[in-house]
Amino acid sequence: MPPQPSLPEPAHPDVDSMLSRKFGKEVANYFSGSPLNRVGFLRPDHAFLSSAIHHPSTTFLLFNNLEPLVKSGTEIAHCTFGDIKSVIGENPFAESESDTIAQYNSSLYLPQIIFLGLDEKKEGFRYKEHYKGQPWFAVDVTPKESVKAECEKLIEKLKGEGLEFSKGRMHLSLPAQEAAIYAEARHLLDWNARNPFCASCGYKTLSVNAGFKRTCPPKDIAHEINQGERPPCATRTGISNICFPRTDPTVIMAVVSADGQKILLGRQKRWPPYWYSTLAGFLEPAESVEEAVRREVWEESGIHLGRVVIHSTQPWPYPANLMIGAVGQAIPDGEEIHLGHDAELEDAKWFTAEEVREALRVGTSGLGEGAGPEYKEGGLRLPPKTAIANQLMTAVVNGFASGSPMI
Amino acid sequence: MPPQPSLPEPAHPDVDSMLSRKFGKEVANYFSGSPLNRVGFLRPDHAFLSSAIHHPSTTFLLFNNLEPLVKSGTEIAHCTFGDIKSVIGENPFAESESDTIAQYNSSLYLPQIIFLGLDEKKEGFRYKEHYKGQPWFAVDVTPKESVKAECEKLIEKLKGEGLEFSKGRMHLSLPAQEAAIYAEARHLLDWNARNPFCASCGYKTLSVNAGFKRTCPPKDIAHEINQGERPPCATRTGISNICFPRTDPTVIMAVVSADGQKILLGRQKRWPPYWYSTLAGFLEPAESVEEAVRREVWEESGIHLGRVVIHSTQPWPYPANLMIGAVGQAIPDGEEIHLGHDAELEDAKWFTAEEVREALRVGTSGLGEGAGPEYKEGGLRLPPKTAIANQLMTAVVNGFASGSPMI
Ligand SMILES: [Zn+2]
Ligand SMILES: [Zn+2]
Repeated sequence: MPPQPSLPEPAHPDVDSMLSRKFGKEVANYFSGSPLNRVGFLRPDHAFLSSAIHHPSTTFLLFNNLEPLVKSGTEIAHCTFGDIKSVIGENPFAESESDTIAQYNSSLYLPQIIFLGLDEKKEGFRYKEHYKGQPWFAVDVTPKESVKAECEKLIEKLKGEGLEFSKGRMHLSLPAQEAAIYAEARHLLDWNARNPFCASCGYKTLSVNAGFKRTCPPKDIAHEINQGERPPCATRTGISNICFPRTDPTVIMAVVSADGQKILLGRQKRWPPYWYSTLAGFLEPAESVEEAVRREVWEESGIHLGRVVIHSTQPWPYPANLMIGAVGQAIPDGEEIHLGHDAELEDAKWFTAEEVREALRVGTSGLGEGAGPEYKEGGLRLPPKTAIANQLMTAVVNGFASGSPMI
Repeated sequence: MPPQPSLPEPAHPDVDSMLSRKFGKEVANYFSGSPLNRVGFLRPDHAFLSSAIHHPSTTFLLFNNLEPLVKSGTEIAHCTFGDIKSVIGENPFAESESDTIAQYNSSLYLPQIIFLGLDEKKEGFRYKEHYKGQPWFAVDVTPKESVKAECEKLIEKLKGEGLEFSKGRMHLSLPAQEAAIYAEARHLLDWNARNPFCASCGYKTLSVNAGFKRTCPPKDIAHEINQGERPPCATRTGISNICFPRTDPTVIMAVVSADGQKILLGRQKRWPPYWYSTLAGFLEPAESVEEAVRREVWEESGIHLGRVVIHSTQPWPYPANLMIGAVGQAIPDGEEIHLGHDAELEDAKWFTAEEVREALRVGTSGLGEGAGPEYKEGGLRLPPKTAIANQLMTAVVNGFASGSPMI
């Protein structure tokens, strides 16, 4: 079994509060726990961004087709402004945002830059009275369009230094804090790449707010007719959600039987043998989380739930999910399994607390990996600690629902 | 004070479960509690939809520019297939989905139709072994394009029957179950109207899955060059989230002081005098809910939170929010208010539990309405029970955080 990465420590001081006495210590899931202060209200301030991007302490994460530059499977690589100057130019934030929009030219390719935040534990950069720390940026160095040659040159140089762009999801073994920063960068690079056009009018959009907004400019120098003026667009007449990054709420739930003794798990066909996990699915429009949990469990397993309680949440940047972890309890006459409604699962099954506890001890691993040395063929296999599914099952066997550990 | 609508009863049986013993009864917020089974897995099945849309028990909600047809401020209007046949045609689901996509013609205007679900408490319609109940649909009858004249005629007829399209948000006084169905319809009609173009390639998209998906067809009869064939689009080579309705996770939180005795509330400039509410804001990419709560509270008030617990959630269809309600507790040395980071609030202030409890009793109302007869000028004013903010404050003064009511 490969080493499993550490989970984040909650970023906040673990004081003895009424809330933690009543509900227990907060569970911090993998991909949360970022050490950065995003200071999001400074994103439209080009003086701030210009100053931050040029500070000697500033660090840059590089991505090629959404793959992060890494030193190894457990360590992300850091670059300097000098490394990427040939790709992004001397100062991509030289102009104010309104000037940038006024001079919009859709035929120019601008490599995507994301301002990730300030690491306040590091001294150095300061802005105004309240804001200080090491600035972090992410830059897309995918070789394409006008920067193709410069990106290729840079990538060759980085390879010569022993760095590489990580394939697949080996970044699931990054240390917790780096994983959270990587998640922020990946989510935003993906959203920008996925949405080059305005869904409202069909014209090209422009990245502003240091990667956190896409705007539909009223004029485009490359648009030859009508002096560059574009047709009206609804996103220009008020604030529209489609200009801002999208996050898809997803529900994932540990289901406990009416007598509190069993846990419902399901498996998909493509998973390895004996592998099960908690049920999950997307929240639908105009549903509460509690309703989405009951609906998904009924659709996938035929089981009817009563009370649902939300346990914790996890960002999941593939591509843009918020996993909302819950625990739900079946009603006494609603425990019969029926897989025929929505044929997503190959199987769903009630397991005893003992089976689940033992599998959490010996049978967890990443999907493509082998279980640990104590695992015996035929035993239940479960996802690793980095998955909120694992945290939900752990919470349930440890007594989240009832107050005392399940037997 | 106008009458405040009832809140939904939880749709599930309120059995005595471990979860409700430990965490209390589930709070069902306004706009949740829909009585419909959405049977979402049947949406791609045109035989199901054809049959459901023609059943004599089927009911249709009509919208004009997102305004619902109502009998009064507290009652939604129901129409029949006969009423809207002239607008949507004899059978909008006559073709299979793949045939509809293959015959796509972007120059044809198709009024948006949403399949909302089956009301299983009503007998009549049946489909296959498991699915029965009264089918509900929503139809956009905004007078435009090729159906302009037919929609205008229909609207005149409905006005003659004393019905009207509700302006503003008077539908906030609908009974709970109707409000939930209205929310589903509004969220989906708005999403379809807001996203006529593909954000990936800029071409027009087509509504499928009875209003729950927009697809980017590979061919368009109206596209004259290249035999109607369109350029490649990334949304066709795999499942893409941008084809599915968007829901924006939003955090809203009651903040308790470190000693558990005070509650933090804020006010926006545009609100009536003495009006306060809980802080709120959008979740950012790759944040957990708990982190978003701590970040928003710090940005808006300067206060530092420790433990955060999620209380309940509320769909909010203006246009597409999921309100995630939480309770957070300030850390002992993090209680000083600073409004200068993100200037969204005019004021933020600590209130005693007694002030909040009294305001929940006499000072609640909708934003445009007067408070009740017992309210005295100068006293704290708060949002009504239909707002999750109200439910969070109620939970906190009643002891959600500590187990016993606050004094
Ligand atoms: Zn536009
Ligand atoms: Zn497309």
